[in-house]
Amino acid sequence: MTSPMYSTSVPVFKQMLGSLQVILQKAQAHAAEKKVEDQVFLQARLTPDMFNLIRQVQIAADFAKGISARLAGVDVPEYQDTEATFEDLQARLAKTLEFINSLNAAQFEGGENREIILRPGTPKEKKLTGNAYLLGYGLPQFFFHVTTTYAILRHHGVELGKRDYMGVY
Amino acid sequence: MTSPMYSTSVPVFKQMLGSLQVILQKAQAHAAEKKVEDQVFLQARLTPDMFNLIRQVQIAADFAKGISARLAGVDVPEYQDTEATFEDLQARLAKTLEFINSLNAAQFEGGENREIILRPGTPKEKKLTGNAYLLGYGLPQFFFHVTTTYAILRHHGVELGKRDYMGVY
Repeated sequence: MTSPMYSTSVPVFKQMLGSLQVILQKAQAHAAEKKVEDQVFLQARLTPDMFNLIRQVQIAADFAKGISARLAGVDVPEYQDTEATFEDLQARLAKTLEFINSLNAAQFEGGENREIILRPGTPKEKKLTGNAYLLGYGLPQFFFHVTTTYAILRHHGVELGKRDYMGVY
Repeated sequence: MTSPMYSTSVPVFKQMLGSLQVILQKAQAHAAEKKVEDQVFLQARLTPDMFNLIRQVQIAADFAKGISARLAGVDVPEYQDTEATFEDLQARLAKTLEFINSLNAAQFEGGENREIILRPGTPKEKKLTGNAYLLGYGLPQFFFHVTTTYAILRHHGVELGKRDYMGVY
């Protein structure tokens, strides 16, 4: 039987990162069609003190790689947050997918009981089991940033539908 | 061992519906403080062809009860979508929490292999195992509507932070 920690993480991330790839392609095509600079969308946000589109995508990708790596017990790859274009974001998503595809289900065996430490060494440090980390922290965070990416683009007029958000399931 | 179908659904829904309760309380308090009619927030949406706040909350609650019921193999309770006030939405969330709290983990045993039919009897009918339904369809849908509720309120100036979205984990 496949570890539930694997089946509840990697396939979900693959589906939703695939959805982000399509959503960003459509956003870029929309910008071209409307003759609006890509940066208008890339820098867009829902309110001044929320992150812009680029940062939302970076964070979604970071949760996908970080959660997968921690549950599999391997080092979290470090990516610099230097993306500035749609092409950069696509490369970030592709790199993230390549990493999570390199993991196999066996590495996640027992991951539900692995101790995960959030914000280690800070006053807000928190220890969770792998299971609590994935379900109570990781997935809510990941979906937040995927949905907010979609919401920013919808709010800025890109023609997307729920089907684009859902991806291939 | 608890069924993974239970631990991946009911506790997640409880956490996030609890978060919605707090978020909506803060939105109502904000409306009162700013002397803005509640309906301004309740009818708010991110773009004309997305659902308003009331509908987002109703749908989030519906996914929580529908997914839980289907995986547990019990009838999905039918709720009328008549909510018009913050108090109504709180009652809807409370009723939904009461329902999912009435389910026990044993009912979810084997739920991962239960056949779930989406949009039955329509041209878009789709059959999924319980596992694929929960992870590839249900959770992405549920989190979409929770996050969009938060996003609408942030976009309309309610002071909320990621902590409010995350709830108690």
